[in-house]
Amino acid sequence: MGKMKKSKGQKLWKRAKYIIPGGNMLLSKRPDYYSRDFWPTYFTRAKGCLISDLNNKQYIDMSMMGIGTNILGYGNKKIDNAVKKTIQKGNLSTLNCPEEVYLAEKLIQLHPWAEMVKFTRSGGEANAVAIRIARASTKKQKIAVCGYHGWHDWYLAANLTKKDRLDEHFIKGISPRGVPNELRGSTLTFRYNNFEELEKLIKKNPEIGIIKMEVARNYEPKNNFLQKIKELSLKKGIILIFDECSSGFRQSYGGLHKIYGVEPDIAIFGKALGNGYAINAIVGKEKYMRFAEKTFISSTFWTERIGPTAALKTLEEMKRKKSWEVITKKGYEMRKKWKMLADKYDLDIEFFGIPALSGFIIKSKNFFQYKTLITQELLKKSILATNIIYFSTEHSKKYIDKYLKALENVFCLIAECEKGRNIKTLIKVKKSKSFFERLN
Amino acid sequence: MGKMKKSKGQKLWKRAKYIIPGGNMLLSKRPDYYSRDFWPTYFTRAKGCLISDLNNKQYIDMSMMGIGTNILGYGNKKIDNAVKKTIQKGNLSTLNCPEEVYLAEKLIQLHPWAEMVKFTRSGGEANAVAIRIARASTKKQKIAVCGYHGWHDWYLAANLTKKDRLDEHFIKGISPRGVPNELRGSTLTFRYNNFEELEKLIKKNPEIGIIKMEVARNYEPKNNFLQKIKELSLKKGIILIFDECSSGFRQSYGGLHKIYGVEPDIAIFGKALGNGYAINAIVGKEKYMRFAEKTFISSTFWTERIGPTAALKTLEEMKRKKSWEVITKKGYEMRKKWKMLADKYDLDIEFFGIPALSGFIIKSKNFFQYKTLITQELLKKSILATNIIYFSTEHSKKYIDKYLKALENVFCLIAECEKGRNIKTLIKVKKSKSFFERLN
Repeated sequence: MGKMKKSKGQKLWKRAKYIIPGGNMLLSKRPDYYSRDFWPTYFTRAKGCLISDLNNKQYIDMSMMGIGTNILGYGNKKIDNAVKKTIQKGNLSTLNCPEEVYLAEKLIQLHPWAEMVKFTRSGGEANAVAIRIARASTKKQKIAVCGYHGWHDWYLAANLTKKDRLDEHFIKGISPRGVPNELRGSTLTFRYNNFEELEKLIKKNPEIGIIKMEVARNYEPKNNFLQKIKELSLKKGIILIFDECSSGFRQSYGGLHKIYGVEPDIAIFGKALGNGYAINAIVGKEKYMRFAEKTFISSTFWTERIGPTAALKTLEEMKRKKSWEVITKKGYEMRKKWKMLADKYDLDIEFFGIPALSGFIIKSKNFFQYKTLITQELLKKSILATNIIYFSTEHSKKYIDKYLKALENVFCLIAECEKGRNIKTLIKVKKSKSFFERLN
Repeated sequence: MGKMKKSKGQKLWKRAKYIIPGGNMLLSKRPDYYSRDFWPTYFTRAKGCLISDLNNKQYIDMSMMGIGTNILGYGNKKIDNAVKKTIQKGNLSTLNCPEEVYLAEKLIQLHPWAEMVKFTRSGGEANAVAIRIARASTKKQKIAVCGYHGWHDWYLAANLTKKDRLDEHFIKGISPRGVPNELRGSTLTFRYNNFEELEKLIKKNPEIGIIKMEVARNYEPKNNFLQKIKELSLKKGIILIFDECSSGFRQSYGGLHKIYGVEPDIAIFGKALGNGYAINAIVGKEKYMRFAEKTFISSTFWTERIGPTAALKTLEEMKRKKSWEVITKKGYEMRKKWKMLADKYDLDIEFFGIPALSGFIIKSKNFFQYKTLITQELLKKSILATNIIYFSTEHSKKYIDKYLKALENVFCLIAECEKGRNIKTLIKVKKSKSFFERLN
């Protein structure tokens, strides 16, 4: 792979970096995150769990599946056909589309604790809507936050106090540059599974009126973490918001919170909800959601029809396939396989994430380089891979076997490195930037 | 129309209000804005300038055309086919779509003063991105604002100082409830065509580093208003941002600022850019746009492919049809016809807006009720109408003639009312809420 000719995708990425700040619209889709010099970067076709790059080279996606958007696989025929029918009928007009009402009703059915719904077309914005609604509902304007919740001011404000506050929740040293300094102190962080920290934070800051968190990302809740938070929120009159953009529909038919039996006041969905079409939902109790009417929250493109059409069909197909069970099973099975491989090569492996969004770490000071090696070597076998897999229903045995075979070869190399072989001699690409290694 | 059975749309709206705060996602698409009791509210099909409601009753849209999204008409075949092809190939994957790079290059071609582009999928969010980038580029964090720019905190903050600050820019008495009080004083308003007010504002607030405005909405710039602002921004080192979401592509092939020969530092596009598909662009000078890389701005659904696909084809079709000339001509012609009708019935009429987005006011203390009467009477003729028309290339003579014939009957009634007939006896529907009458 050393001196191969630049692919069309690599050439286009060079053009992109000249005219698009950061080169694209999503940090997690930058080639630097994977293998700066060899990652295909752009796609022309995607179907099932296969992606073709601009040179029409086909890859198996054993990595991020759209960064979590495509639980039912790329180009799902039933969903695509529903969207095409909607296009045939007209995507937008001066009048509203009825699908948004049907989708709202459906989401309330799935979350009986909730009574009202609002939609957006991006996750960051959905979070900002939820925060606006919560702040409109309470006098206590400060937010206690845990996990990742998008790019908006209210969230990055956490790093105004000290630049490392979001390190453990998101990525290291993210700059809040451009966020009004007046917001310093308005968003305060607490760590996952550290209930005492949250308790102290709230005691010290009685103006905290909102708790905003992911239900689970890397680890399961321990010692009734979620239950305790729920009780605390009730006792203190704090609004509890779960961000289920990443976790939703991956382990249950709806929010991950259904698994743990803890109901929030507001929950946010996105990512997988439209199986690759843009749609986000803010689902909540009427006593809070009604405050959306006492402030101003409104946007033209939130009325387009593809989003709710795709979501309605996605929910139907998820239910028919019980996709959350299918991908959870695939996650558990993969962990077993990873463990077997690690044992075979005497590597110390650990897992993180919910089963359907599984990742592994090989316990070694060289792990970041091993990760790069995995991406590099699997690319040679036409597989997109890192140390995390977002499972889809389309990851069939054939593809998983091919992936495992290729991975075994890398585990073998890693074992050699652990015994003294110089990893640097194996890495043909520049090391992936630690900046992006947020999930490890 | 008095006691007719509730239509399917009216029934659905009742359901919607129970489960969606405000009933829908966009203020300007609420039936209250038009004719609360008779507006069809929901659509099943839209094609050209025709819309069918849930009872399959067809209307001519002589009103908002998607609130400005569909210059090339609803269900434009060429754009829809391009989108369908994209769906066939896959809308989203772990890799990026090349179309976003092509679209960025195209928008820079159309705006040679700009070097870089960022995309979102809603106008409010595009505005928030522009503000973040601008604030990241300057130490002077306050914003001088004129016009309408969405629902986000930075904008509504203007009303924290006093609740009427946005009255002339947007709608009366909008509540900034839920916007952090710490932002009080961070956004300050100035009125359109009042350069002295802006000058004084900046003198009094040397921390103003950003001017954010619409190029024109209701009135044309007078006394070199835009040129003076440009000079002032250069002199004071202030970043000038034009929000072209509504004005873009309506009078020129690109921003309205091209007509006036005044170039901003950053411009925002949306609405018509994708002809009914969600896509927004933040187009700007590299010296500012690069600061997007020094902060964090990123969202999953900004990487979907329909938006840039639709925009590329829309730009192609706009160019082929010279749509900005076509709709500007239609606007001027309509003003002539409105004037002729007003003269015939001895009504005192005034126009506002850019030609392609024309509105009229009949100078009378009863105008708001006349407006409601227009909507009510034209609905009887299966025409959606108010006192504003967003023109599209699909508004052909046949439809315009039908509209004018129906409008003449109402002008005749209005003339009678001006001579003493009681308007209240004519209005079968509740008066439209003055709350929504922002454009008059």
